[in-house]
Amino acid sequence: METLKLLFLSLALALAAASNAATAGSIPDHFHPLRPQLGTSAGRRIPGLNCLSWRLAVEADNIQDWTVVPKECENYVGNYMLGLQYRIDSKFVTGSAYLYAKNLTLGKDGKDVWVFDIDDTSLSNLPYYAQPDTAFGAKPYNDTTFTVWEKQAKAPALPATLWLYKRLLRLGFKIVFLTGRSETFRAVTVQNLHKVGYTKWEKLILKSAEEKAEGLHALQYKSRERTNLVKAGYRILGNIGDQWSDVLGDNVGSRTFKLPNPMFYIA
Amino acid sequence: METLKLLFLSLALALAAASNAATAGSIPDHFHPLRPQLGTSAGRRIPGLNCLSWRLAVEADNIQDWTVVPKECENYVGNYMLGLQYRIDSKFVTGSAYLYAKNLTLGKDGKDVWVFDIDDTSLSNLPYYAQPDTAFGAKPYNDTTFTVWEKQAKAPALPATLWLYKRLLRLGFKIVFLTGRSETFRAVTVQNLHKVGYTKWEKLILKSAEEKAEGLHALQYKSRERTNLVKAGYRILGNIGDQWSDVLGDNVGSRTFKLPNPMFYIA
Repeated sequence: METLKLLFLSLALALAAASNAATAGSIPDHFHPLRPQLGTSAGRRIPGLNCLSWRLAVEADNIQDWTVVPKECENYVGNYMLGLQYRIDSKFVTGSAYLYAKNLTLGKDGKDVWVFDIDDTSLSNLPYYAQPDTAFGAKPYNDTTFTVWEKQAKAPALPATLWLYKRLLRLGFKIVFLTGRSETFRAVTVQNLHKVGYTKWEKLILKSAEEKAEGLHALQYKSRERTNLVKAGYRILGNIGDQWSDVLGDNVGSRTFKLPNPMFYIA
Repeated sequence: METLKLLFLSLALALAAASNAATAGSIPDHFHPLRPQLGTSAGRRIPGLNCLSWRLAVEADNIQDWTVVPKECENYVGNYMLGLQYRIDSKFVTGSAYLYAKNLTLGKDGKDVWVFDIDDTSLSNLPYYAQPDTAFGAKPYNDTTFTVWEKQAKAPALPATLWLYKRLLRLGFKIVFLTGRSETFRAVTVQNLHKVGYTKWEKLILKSAEEKAEGLHALQYKSRERTNLVKAGYRILGNIGDQWSDVLGDNVGSRTFKLPNPMFYIA
């Protein structure tokens, strides 16, 4: 049985690697020297901190304002993000979102919207975070290198989210992308979205220079922009993001969906 | 290595059983015929539904209004609830709550409160849910048998919560228990709380006959009662429960903490 389990896991890791490799140019040259671990129970072996518990606490919003992944959980988070479980967890979230969406009756005025966050929701920055210098969030955030990565417009789609996006379009939803990315990145963002399959939307809202200068937290900025949508007559029926700041605050929408992200926290 | 892992898990299960047995009378005669599984990755073997993903979605509030644990996850949930991971996860949540609490400066007027839910937060109904007729929530909720269990006042404390309760008292917090239990259960609830170590509180709020007749959801009922606390001059600095309906709504408190509970959902 254990041999089977081992075989299954090797296969899973190989598949994950292959699926990453398929997005060719997006794979950095230097890949994190990850030590493979068997199963998610591997966290138990870490003294003092249980990485399973840490990740659960992150996903249930029990720990907030953390800046880096605990050093002890670097390998755990890496294995999770590159393994099958992250993909299955993400698919379960967007699958649940679709089950909710398909039972709704939309108005005929084209005002029913679904809000999508971009980074690590619609697009995946995992190829960037899998580098040794970022170490799946276990190294401090580096705005310079992240900006370089962002400008390359090479981020792959998060497959589970692209799947939901296509089905929502078919159901008649209007799509609103709402991102903390700066307005100055509009062109590369559009380019990246188009390249991976997000080709149609009602609005793409980025942070203006004025909003940037105000120094608003993501939660406040996104609350304000969603309130503007509601004032403009839109009905936010759904909202999906990888951060709690995407789905808490004002006018969050009739239902919200939180994708997993144990790599960083945005307030 | 695998032998060691096996030994470790046997030990964990034995410890869990012993810790349950320690609360003597609370163990039902008929215990769920659980098939032990190795590690939390066991969910992967279930076709069609990944129980790890299901549980994560529950804890991140992505699936709502579910009535029973999916049949395929009955054993998974049972193993989780009786195993070490549930205990470690719970302790991580209350540990995080304590780290937050101990950095606060309390007023001298005795108005700083921490709100505690009761069922499966302060008291554990796991001995009840571990019976074959409840099957860790995989069988439909039975109000008759749960009431019999409740009236016995035999529920053990959830150790992680009792730990937090004692430390908060020492820090000078006033404790408010806020429960969806009916006011008619006040005496047995007090008896049960006292028996397991919760001996001191500012308020114990139960659902009145009028509120029961109104048919309010837990979220609305608890929002209203917390609003009454705030109107009475209390400052809710913390709030802990096992349901999202404990920690969402109005006046939830400066920080909220969500304990794991994959056995049932209360809206």
